[in-house]
Amino acid sequence: MALNGNDQDAMRARLVDLAQAMVEERGGAGLNLSELAARAGISQANLSRYFETRETLMEAIADHWFQPMVEIMEEVLASDLPPRRKMYEFFARRFVVMRKKWEADPVKLQTYIEVGSDYFEQVRSYIDLADHYLGEIIGEGMSDGHFAGLEVDETISLVNQMCAPYCALQTMTMFMERLNEDKLARIIDAVFDGLSAQDRGAKALTGLRAA
Amino acid sequence: MALNGNDQDAMRARLVDLAQAMVEERGGAGLNLSELAARAGISQANLSRYFETRETLMEAIADHWFQPMVEIMEEVLASDLPPRRKMYEFFARRFVVMRKKWEADPVKLQTYIEVGSDYFEQVRSYIDLADHYLGEIIGEGMSDGHFAGLEVDETISLVNQMCAPYCALQTMTMFMERLNEDKLARIIDAVFDGLSAQDRGAKALTGLRAA
Repeated sequence: MALNGNDQDAMRARLVDLAQAMVEERGGAGLNLSELAARAGISQANLSRYFETRETLMEAIADHWFQPMVEIMEEVLASDLPPRRKMYEFFARRFVVMRKKWEADPVKLQTYIEVGSDYFEQVRSYIDLADHYLGEIIGEGMSDGHFAGLEVDETISLVNQMCAPYCALQTMTMFMERLNEDKLARIIDAVFDGLSAQDRGAKALTGLRAA
Repeated sequence: MALNGNDQDAMRARLVDLAQAMVEERGGAGLNLSELAARAGISQANLSRYFETRETLMEAIADHWFQPMVEIMEEVLASDLPPRRKMYEFFARRFVVMRKKWEADPVKLQTYIEVGSDYFEQVRSYIDLADHYLGEIIGEGMSDGHFAGLEVDETISLVNQMCAPYCALQTMTMFMERLNEDKLARIIDAVFDGLSAQDRGAKALTGLRAA
């Protein structure tokens, strides 16, 4: 039976849903193409027309999972907020989505995070996209005189490190009970008012002197 | 045979060494008191005079492992450095010790980190001590006019979050290749020059507006 484009899209989405349920039950290693075909009530040959390998299926699951996060980033970038507000929303809105997932089912969230670690290549493109957008916000901040003397890439790295509990998911779940939007806002204000290439005394060439 | 105090201390240290080797071979779950007694060539009854339970032994291993870190913190606190330099050294010196362990044997370091997660009560006192010392440095910074309007506890939490890759070990090992002392120094300078209770625009009550 030949399916039209819409039916094909619907079948594809249904397969991703079923595969996601298998991953949630048993982790990424529990995803099995022949069982997926059986659950979907189609032949393996038919399944392979949608997903030839486990990897392409894992990639589709990752895309599906990250899609709301990508939409948040695009919405924030398209807004006319000043860069400081943009950077806050960029982290805060994605943090709130993850916190909701964590509150609803921390074990399920942990499963996805572990799948992400196992299939790191598939989440790499999401991270690269996030860095790209963060770089755009940083560039806007630089136009306003922030991050004096720093390169964009250097600043991306520093901001990711300073905001790690609000964006690196493994770190986020460990810190979750101590995270909130007010603290994130203070951190972003410190990023904008405190980050520059000028050494203002934290590091020194001399070692410690005893008191 | 009655041992004098020095011999008892030496036996205790030897038992901790042997127990540590077992943990390194097989993780915390592989630590077995009867096997430890056999390896040490003493009876289980004799072993129990040093360590009555696995928990007291794990606690001794944790103490032994954290001891160099405690010494670093005490040395930094006792120095006459200004608070900004103190905070940098407070994080940098412990980070360098961990990076050396990671460079020497990342798998062994990961084993200790996992043991720490499994026996979290035993590392709790180290974390509390680190927070206590960080609070002292922050108090000194406040005397110099930094962190205006923030409470000490609030500032401890914010600094720990902003420096998470340099102090939370699980986060550190994930980020290790992108961490260095120059970045840490820039973060500490941002902490001192950018962190205060005043909202300078990161957070706002209004939502996003489309461009």
